[in-house]
Amino acid sequence: MKITKLSNIISLKRQLEGGNEEQLKTVRQVLLDVRENGDAAISKYSQMWDGVQLDNFRVAQTEIDDALLNFDPQLKKDLEEAAANIRYYHEAQKRDGYKLPLDNGSWLAQRIIPLDAVGLYVPGGLAAYPSSVLMNVIPAQVAGVQRIVITSPAGKDGKLPDAVLVAASILGVNEIYKVGGAQAIAALAYGTETIAPVDKITGPGNIYVALAKREVFGEVAIDMIAGPSEIAVLADDTAYADEIAADLLSQAEHDALACAVLITTSEQLAEDVAAEVERQLSSLPKETIARQSIENFGQIYIAENLEQAIGAVNSLAPEHLEIVTANAEEDSLKIRHAGAIFIGRYSSEPVGDYFAGTNHVLPTNSTARFASGLNVDDFIKRSSVVYYSEKTWEENAPKIARLARMEGLEGHARAVESRGWTKGGN
Amino acid sequence: MKITKLSNIISLKRQLEGGNEEQLKTVRQVLLDVRENGDAAISKYSQMWDGVQLDNFRVAQTEIDDALLNFDPQLKKDLEEAAANIRYYHEAQKRDGYKLPLDNGSWLAQRIIPLDAVGLYVPGGLAAYPSSVLMNVIPAQVAGVQRIVITSPAGKDGKLPDAVLVAASILGVNEIYKVGGAQAIAALAYGTETIAPVDKITGPGNIYVALAKREVFGEVAIDMIAGPSEIAVLADDTAYADEIAADLLSQAEHDALACAVLITTSEQLAEDVAAEVERQLSSLPKETIARQSIENFGQIYIAENLEQAIGAVNSLAPEHLEIVTANAEEDSLKIRHAGAIFIGRYSSEPVGDYFAGTNHVLPTNSTARFASGLNVDDFIKRSSVVYYSEKTWEENAPKIARLARMEGLEGHARAVESRGWTKGGN
Repeated sequence: MKITKLSNIISLKRQLEGGNEEQLKTVRQVLLDVRENGDAAISKYSQMWDGVQLDNFRVAQTEIDDALLNFDPQLKKDLEEAAANIRYYHEAQKRDGYKLPLDNGSWLAQRIIPLDAVGLYVPGGLAAYPSSVLMNVIPAQVAGVQRIVITSPAGKDGKLPDAVLVAASILGVNEIYKVGGAQAIAALAYGTETIAPVDKITGPGNIYVALAKREVFGEVAIDMIAGPSEIAVLADDTAYADEIAADLLSQAEHDALACAVLITTSEQLAEDVAAEVERQLSSLPKETIARQSIENFGQIYIAENLEQAIGAVNSLAPEHLEIVTANAEEDSLKIRHAGAIFIGRYSSEPVGDYFAGTNHVLPTNSTARFASGLNVDDFIKRSSVVYYSEKTWEENAPKIARLARMEGLEGHARAVESRGWTKGGN
Repeated sequence: MKITKLSNIISLKRQLEGGNEEQLKTVRQVLLDVRENGDAAISKYSQMWDGVQLDNFRVAQTEIDDALLNFDPQLKKDLEEAAANIRYYHEAQKRDGYKLPLDNGSWLAQRIIPLDAVGLYVPGGLAAYPSSVLMNVIPAQVAGVQRIVITSPAGKDGKLPDAVLVAASILGVNEIYKVGGAQAIAALAYGTETIAPVDKITGPGNIYVALAKREVFGEVAIDMIAGPSEIAVLADDTAYADEIAADLLSQAEHDALACAVLITTSEQLAEDVAAEVERQLSSLPKETIARQSIENFGQIYIAENLEQAIGAVNSLAPEHLEIVTANAEEDSLKIRHAGAIFIGRYSSEPVGDYFAGTNHVLPTNSTARFASGLNVDDFIKRSSVVYYSEKTWEENAPKIARLARMEGLEGHARAVESRGWTKGGN
């Protein structure tokens, strides 16, 4: 891993794959086809791309029951405990609207209303991601969303992974479809004979899924388009090099485009971590991916002092930040931009990926400057409410009419003035 | 105005202008040019499109002082009162993070942090929009944003409208630039020698501004891309036709693509409103625009009963909803999808555009199904924080490692397991 002295400006930003014209053309074709031909189009593309022919996209209760039967009971307990922790953390985000009294019986209010229906895309492929199910579904449930749909591509055997079905079952979600790719996003956005449309689509996916989400954005809401994972570690000489190296590699193994950075005030730690990363890499199952990430985007910066190091972290605005310093909690209060912060040596980043309760859907590519991790507010919307009594109207109508006329909107002024005392109230 | 019986599905959605290829090409060229050439590019485009040559883009304090001197004191008082009302409503949206204790000294937290810097685009042209200044700036101020920038195209005289400068001055905003169009968005997103970049850009604009906002999205945050205005009125036979007609026209005068809809249980009201709209149209200064809107998108629906009418409103998900019925507040509780709700005959929609305190930046084109009006949360972000003590780590590390291995992420498991008792804590 490269070691350099920290200069003023550093950045995590990588040139990300935005999809090429050919891929976009394909996605648009799929979206149009599903919009026009519904289930028939879904069948066609499932066969074409996932190599499965399904009579029924919806996962049957018997399939869920089978998955529960097959599943390691210890892992199920682990998932249940993780789910409870995630629920505990997200419950604290729930909130009520408010009603503010004005004079003369008038009032203003804000009402918080959960979305009617949301869809979670769970990627398929070689691995199963039950943690994605927990992280996306639980905030929606806490928000009060009534209909939660999961969609994920079936394997060659026409099934979804047991782990995904078990995670869904733990959460009480049973509307699950074996549909993947852009056709799944189309189904969620437009609806088909089998799949009713939703109001928001969340969850990660490949480039086709990402492009499809961008295309349907506006028709429905989407979550952020997640980029490759990032970790920044801020450490001083109280940190252990093997632990820091292991944490850097935990993100590097996600993606060759992932980015792992150490910023430290200790030259000794910098050298030890570089050596440890090399040592640990050689035995990592995902060595190839992790090595690419470390070689292309990994970096160790030596800071002159903690202030400079903290400044650098804020300029990075990393997705994940670990702080392993003598006064880690205190130092964390100076961090303005980070998706998730892990304090002290025992708060290894994967603790938050799976279990602690915080969300693992987090802003990447420096968007933590302005964006947040997935949370309950992503599944609600707000309506403002105005009630003006006759008296309040009478007092304020001339002011409102003046303001409207100043902006050249005579119709607005007349609307406010149209309420007449002489007609009597109702 | 057309009157029809309400059938099951109605929609406000119009085919909206998304900008053509030529416009997009222009916008991309401007963005690139400003990114590379900074102020020089800004000057070039300001001269090219706004026809003004400016030595200094930044509004001088003397210009603000002059505006205050020239401005009608009554209108200034009206703006100040509106600002105070808007602040009162939005203050209630402010909230703190939280810290949740876990066993063994561990804890989780959510921290709420305001954005560092935001930019508000205020459109120029024939009219001045001080209300936009209030509606965009105040939520950002309540959120705690330290740097708020306003940018707006200068008139041929090289100046901004007094009303805009006065509104900014009332709010204490003095970083104001005389830059408009796509070049303004580029300056806010990338920064130039004169204008430091911001983290989020809000505010309406023409098609070039909208396209530029879409293009820089990801680099910075943006607010929604606002569509043409909409109003739905839900009324029974207690409503006055002239008032309803005036309110429908107040939205129709905004834009030929604006949409004004009445849904009523009263056939008599339907007929009276249609006649009133025609009568009032003929004397409206913006008659041409309003007439186009009413003819193309205006509609009166007669519902069989209130239930059906409320169902229709929810399927519309209108930006603005007025409820003028015998039990308007009670009926409003059945509304799930509307940007802003106005209750009773004295809560004419322009009350909320200018004065009541609620925000007038609202979701259009049925996006109220999943989106909210501009609010304080649009100017903050959240960081999650995890602190695990040694004991909590010890108890949970095996579970976390199992979950990671289930997903094929050995590096994650090893990271969590790397913490050793034998090394001793710190």
